Amino acid sequence: MKFAIDAELPNTLGRTGTITTPHGEIQTPAFVPVATKATIKSLTPEQVRDAGAQVVLANTYHLYLEPGDEQVKNLGGLGNMMNWKGPTMTDSGGFQVFSLGAAYGKKGITKISHRELLLPKIVEEETPKIVTIDPNGVMFRSHTDGSAHYFTPEKSIDIQHNLGADIIFAFDECTSPYEPLHYQKQALERTHRWAKQSLEYHKSKNTSQALFGIVQGGRDENLRKESAKIIGDMDFDGFGIGGSFEKEDMQHAVQWCNSILPKHKPRHLLGIGEPVDLFGAVENGCDLFDCVSPTRIARTGMVYTKDGRINLLNQEFREDSKPLDDCTCYTCKNYSRAYIAHLFRAKEMLAATLASIHNLHFIISMVDTMRERIKNKNFENFKKDFLKRYYKS
Amino acid sequence: MKFAIDAELPNTLGRTGTITTPHGEIQTPAFVPVATKATIKSLTPEQVRDAGAQVVLANTYHLYLEPGDEQVKNLGGLGNMMNWKGPTMTDSGGFQVFSLGAAYGKKGITKISHRELLLPKIVEEETPKIVTIDPNGVMFRSHTDGSAHYFTPEKSIDIQHNLGADIIFAFDECTSPYEPLHYQKQALERTHRWAKQSLEYHKSKNTSQALFGIVQGGRDENLRKESAKIIGDMDFDGFGIGGSFEKEDMQHAVQWCNSILPKHKPRHLLGIGEPVDLFGAVENGCDLFDCVSPTRIARTGMVYTKDGRINLLNQEFREDSKPLDDCTCYTCKNYSRAYIAHLFRAKEMLAATLASIHNLHFIISMVDTMRERIKNKNFENFKKDFLKRYYKS
Repeated sequence: MKFAIDAELPNTLGRTGTITTPHGEIQTPAFVPVATKATIKSLTPEQVRDAGAQVVLANTYHLYLEPGDEQVKNLGGLGNMMNWKGPTMTDSGGFQVFSLGAAYGKKGITKISHRELLLPKIVEEETPKIVTIDPNGVMFRSHTDGSAHYFTPEKSIDIQHNLGADIIFAFDECTSPYEPLHYQKQALERTHRWAKQSLEYHKSKNTSQALFGIVQGGRDENLRKESAKIIGDMDFDGFGIGGSFEKEDMQHAVQWCNSILPKHKPRHLLGIGEPVDLFGAVENGCDLFDCVSPTRIARTGMVYTKDGRINLLNQEFREDSKPLDDCTCYTCKNYSRAYIAHLFRAKEMLAATLASIHNLHFIISMVDTMRERIKNKNFENFKKDFLKRYYKS
Repeated sequence: MKFAIDAELPNTLGRTGTITTPHGEIQTPAFVPVATKATIKSLTPEQVRDAGAQVVLANTYHLYLEPGDEQVKNLGGLGNMMNWKGPTMTDSGGFQVFSLGAAYGKKGITKISHRELLLPKIVEEETPKIVTIDPNGVMFRSHTDGSAHYFTPEKSIDIQHNLGADIIFAFDECTSPYEPLHYQKQALERTHRWAKQSLEYHKSKNTSQALFGIVQGGRDENLRKESAKIIGDMDFDGFGIGGSFEKEDMQHAVQWCNSILPKHKPRHLLGIGEPVDLFGAVENGCDLFDCVSPTRIARTGMVYTKDGRINLLNQEFREDSKPLDDCTCYTCKNYSRAYIAHLFRAKEMLAATLASIHNLHFIISMVDTMRERIKNKNFENFKKDFLKRYYKS
């Protein structure tokens, strides 16, 4: 894997670049759609490509359980199996430590809906955790059949080697922002040790896959900077910035990390997809971002427009013959809001497909435009106009 | 609408032809996929077209209830609303008289799975019928909200004029093969009267839509022939052959009807999709057939192969890296059985999409090959080889 910086955004950490992988180039900054179980839900790879995607990210934990990483390898690896002809990525499984462990059963905690991350709402429920962390690794119970599985850094790398994505991640522990500082320190020590193990084990194998190390540290400035220094000094091909953030913390954490991480390697902000967060992440020097949000909200009838999100199930759209937005995607060129609203009411699968195409296109082309505007030196105007209109503020 | 016979199958009623509609030509015999609620479930119109479809059929009853026929009209009519650029058809709503009335709650009766139509299985359940038939029309209760609606022949035609399909059907009553003869006679008298009313009302309006009359008569030879004579003498643009059949009755009924119906007008066998039935229907002079079966069974993991149907959820396909079949469709060119089986187990929507593309392509190209073989005068060999391999008999 190679990375070259093409242009920079003055007085910020922002830049544009080109990542070259065995399966093609990625122009950055780039939004990465999530193919959790080796499919972007409700879409063919051609529809994902036509929506503008350059690269997709699949989940190691899910593919390990089903259909199994050996099985994916036998079917030619992730990209070949799912008929995605461009670059691919897999996460490390570490995020599941968080979502199935610390955050399991806590409805208020989510990496996706930062707006809902309001501390007083969170209630400790009696849900048993299905993850146990020890110094050497993590014991998962499968969320489907309850079977026990033990992940170590080496196991995560082995699985990701079988999955065969172009870019893979070191095994880490993602913590909740509500864990106390002493826990954050413990978890970070593990993450750093696991990063070193992941890297050493990866280097001992003969593979052309690129390995990214993950910076953690929660909301604490010292821990974030310490983590960026330690992970940044390791010989990774690039970096991920992990963690579940409160909204106001995110850009600080990103800035702390990226001011320290080596400039000439790509940086991936994990699990972020809100427009305002993406603008901040780009300005603060992130090159890649993945998020399930555009396709997840699409399946509920929620679509992005330049004037903010709309819910197609609202009465007002039943007779609305306009397209979803002033937009060049397949959905907007060919279908009305009223027809798509009908499909949602009728519970037709095509509803999810059409809304997902639009939402992916919306977010991807927003990031593509940021890239163009950095090159053309008029990023600030685009950001100001876009956010003002989108958030009506 | 115009219809021209291009070639004939010697010593049978079979033929090939061309139907010309305002939205393009249909080469017959042709399989017509069903877009119940103005979408072929899980597919875009482009995917349906790429699977080989020339024309699609939507259900009047469903579109009347949701989104409403006036609404479809406001969105440019059925084809425009759903982005289908070729010819379209709508049924008359009469089949719902059967499926929601006489057959409602009787699990054994179905138009689709003729194999399951075994008389002893049928049990009169205490399910209230939600359809009431009187001499002038039919009172439906909506299957979604229970609201009452009254369909007359004129109402059905009005709705179908709003929906705007190229080919529409006269309002009829589809009977169960288990109704006694005296009921079949009563129902047939209504169907004939309603056909005349549908035709007269249609002709009083200024429309380029073609109207097909429907022949009924159950399993009784005299009634079928009487119906073919009476309906065939009316000035329809083509004909539908309706009814729910026991498997062994179907080809007799089709033959009785088509030996009497005027030769120079197209004939549509309603709701038929099993391979053996399609061969019989073509030999017996049918030009069009619609059926939900290819896409319905696809959504359950059942796919056609030249060696018969297979259920992708069977254990044996988990590691099967072959395509679904020796086939040129999008699915078979790009995906393995193992990957599609994984998608079904993971309950991913793409599973339904990929299986539906293949099943539609399978049935459509089978009918397309029949057409070629009639023209090339080697239909019999194709039929023999295909059925022997498919049914292993």
